[in-house]
Amino acid sequence: MANNFDYDVVVIGAGPGGLAAAYTLSSSKKVLVIENNLWGGTCPNFGCDPKKMLYSVVESKRQANQYDENGLRGTSEVSVDWPSMIKFKQSYTDKIPGGTESGLASSNIDHVYGTAQFIDQHTVLVDNNKYQSKQFIIATGAKPSIPEIPGAELFDTSTEFLAMPSKPDSIGIVGAGYVAIEIANIAIESGIKVDIFQHNDRILSGFPAEFTGKLAELLEKKGVTFHWNSSVSQLQGTPDGSITLSTNDQQTYTFNHVFAAVGRGANIESLHLDKAGVQSNHGGVIVNQYQQSTANNIFAIGDAVSKSIPKLTPVASYEGRYVADFILERKTDPIIFPAIPHTVFAGPELSQVGVTLNEAKDDPQKYQIKNQSVGSWYSYHRVLDDSAQIATITDGEQGTLVGAVVLSSNAEELINYFTEMINDRKGAKNLPDQIPVYPSAASDLSYLM
Amino acid sequence: MANNFDYDVVVIGAGPGGLAAAYTLSSSKKVLVIENNLWGGTCPNFGCDPKKMLYSVVESKRQANQYDENGLRGTSEVSVDWPSMIKFKQSYTDKIPGGTESGLASSNIDHVYGTAQFIDQHTVLVDNNKYQSKQFIIATGAKPSIPEIPGAELFDTSTEFLAMPSKPDSIGIVGAGYVAIEIANIAIESGIKVDIFQHNDRILSGFPAEFTGKLAELLEKKGVTFHWNSSVSQLQGTPDGSITLSTNDQQTYTFNHVFAAVGRGANIESLHLDKAGVQSNHGGVIVNQYQQSTANNIFAIGDAVSKSIPKLTPVASYEGRYVADFILERKTDPIIFPAIPHTVFAGPELSQVGVTLNEAKDDPQKYQIKNQSVGSWYSYHRVLDDSAQIATITDGEQGTLVGAVVLSSNAEELINYFTEMINDRKGAKNLPDQIPVYPSAASDLSYLM
Repeated sequence: MANNFDYDVVVIGAGPGGLAAAYTLSSSKKVLVIENNLWGGTCPNFGCDPKKMLYSVVESKRQANQYDENGLRGTSEVSVDWPSMIKFKQSYTDKIPGGTESGLASSNIDHVYGTAQFIDQHTVLVDNNKYQSKQFIIATGAKPSIPEIPGAELFDTSTEFLAMPSKPDSIGIVGAGYVAIEIANIAIESGIKVDIFQHNDRILSGFPAEFTGKLAELLEKKGVTFHWNSSVSQLQGTPDGSITLSTNDQQTYTFNHVFAAVGRGANIESLHLDKAGVQSNHGGVIVNQYQQSTANNIFAIGDAVSKSIPKLTPVASYEGRYVADFILERKTDPIIFPAIPHTVFAGPELSQVGVTLNEAKDDPQKYQIKNQSVGSWYSYHRVLDDSAQIATITDGEQGTLVGAVVLSSNAEELINYFTEMINDRKGAKNLPDQIPVYPSAASDLSYLM
Repeated sequence: MANNFDYDVVVIGAGPGGLAAAYTLSSSKKVLVIENNLWGGTCPNFGCDPKKMLYSVVESKRQANQYDENGLRGTSEVSVDWPSMIKFKQSYTDKIPGGTESGLASSNIDHVYGTAQFIDQHTVLVDNNKYQSKQFIIATGAKPSIPEIPGAELFDTSTEFLAMPSKPDSIGIVGAGYVAIEIANIAIESGIKVDIFQHNDRILSGFPAEFTGKLAELLEKKGVTFHWNSSVSQLQGTPDGSITLSTNDQQTYTFNHVFAAVGRGANIESLHLDKAGVQSNHGGVIVNQYQQSTANNIFAIGDAVSKSIPKLTPVASYEGRYVADFILERKTDPIIFPAIPHTVFAGPELSQVGVTLNEAKDDPQKYQIKNQSVGSWYSYHRVLDDSAQIATITDGEQGTLVGAVVLSSNAEELINYFTEMINDRKGAKNLPDQIPVYPSAASDLSYLM
């Protein structure tokens, strides 16, 4: 029967994960990619790529402001021009869907637009057309979760935030995870009034409290208002198009937009997974250590998967390449993940990788922590990054680096260096063997561990 | 006699090289450091550190300007405030000499101010005081060379440039090496009229012509005037304090300052090296592969050495650590240098490491070159770095990275990643094993080789 399938592999979802799998497979397999939204998926269309374009613009303004009377004048005249910022973003995003489609075509990968639903373990239906395949890769990603409260239909999400044609006066954000914090930062730097409603008393639960506390303070200094231990009970439209948000403690607030940023859920409802024998839970598709679902010809990768590791673009691509290699029998071992850095772009950036600060504190025999305020160091004074803070965690016996947390304007860069060191099991003792550019973030490494 | 010396090691010169040696030695040796200028040496007082502070300020302005109508408005109101920029620089540099002295004191390293001259192989004289030592390390660095023409005393150097209390209207720069290009860029971004006089028709002779040509064009677009194939014959003061510069082809130009940037020469005249049996040539102290001079108890490191590798701060520190380890008998092998990246901070940055493009072109059997204009790539479009260009050189058989050239606003960062890959003999095949921050400079690496 195998030879009678329309395809060797059908990839459901044309984001970075699905595409990485499809391209890797395309040289020797007949591949179909199905997408029901924008070709290219979340990251380039309404995720990390456009987010960082807006972030880079507001960071440029912030850095110029920092230099006011420290080398520059006139920086107070600089402000974010929201419509042109969105146009700038579109100069990139507009090309993504078409570029993705033509990329697929030129690699002889078939693609079809529509929502796939399984009929059985080897068949999906898309707009009444059946596609049969030997294997499938579910790469449908995730979408913002919406709190189930009265007026929930009035919530916007990060997708709408990144596409607002004009600048609102005020926004409310429900949640304080990385999406909430990143859009709060872009908004406040753009001159928008920002209120964050958070059910507990901290931001970014995956990061250590001493770092998130510092970042929350910085955002407060920028003007963000945090409503801690606050549960949103209802949204209501007003005649002028605004939205009134009510909290459980009977307060009401009015905003131009209210954004739901309470997490993201796997995009799997429309797949009819049960028809194919694919089990899932609230986190997404359940997979084994080969990214294989409970139906052994159906794999799942990226944000559609139920997993504890961070749901990030490069993780999805990594899984996509792995599954392709597994299908191609180039790999037979279970997937092993290298150190995965996670960065929140919040001006400054908060980033961590490897063993966490809490894990290290719980095992002082095993780990050594070096946690330093580095704002007065040359590299941070140079950019007036007064609040910079860097913690490294090393293996007590070997001295190798095993984890790091960075709060600084160049955290992404430093965490990439740390990540490579962790993967290569390097430590302070290896650094004198290298000659990095001086001065640069890398030339500080030996003082950080 | 050995036990009767005042010191185990006398280090002449308290820059990054000498200090690295002194600190490494201090735990078990009696060490004296002698300095006749600012404690801390060139780099932190009037070299790379203050240079990059000014560079960061003007780059911040340039980046904000780039975003004009691409997310920001009002950026045309931003200008460099020269006096406050110099004050900002001083907020760092003012603390260097005192901080260096107290650092030495707290590590029980003696230090004395004055110019050292050898009397014999074991004795130097500083202001009529004799200091005897078993061993010496010459770490006196280099200083700007001054063209020998009439009016040469009117030349300023990069040291004066970095300390100008107010902004001149116009400057002339003789030379087109990295010092010339870096001060030209800071000046033009600060609104100073800049003319560069260069004896041949290109800048930055150590870098590949196709990259330097592109950088020269960018500087011309910023407003820098290049006088190619132009020899400066004379400087003359004018009654109003300006300087008239004459060229061999009978042209004259008037500037507020004229800077000599034709290279740097080792700072060794006052040492009376002949008295100690130390040989030197026009490049500096001649050393063997143990950084040992022709007098075997006298070592030399950093810019005071005659050598072909780049004279850079981290190279001096590397040599300083090596010589200390050699003296301490922790190392007995000849010094081996890792890949040495070299970056010119010129908005954008031009950087290279490892095998050069010309070497690679001369041996197409051995090397593979990938040379790409990347301005339209996401990472460069995001910061509107249209002219970005990146070449990588890989070993044809192994596929490992052996060299790279980068012209981009984040070249320092990328070249640090490349440098580490070269040192670790990594290539494109290793990159899929890593998960860098996305999007970041590191997440492009696999597309660059």
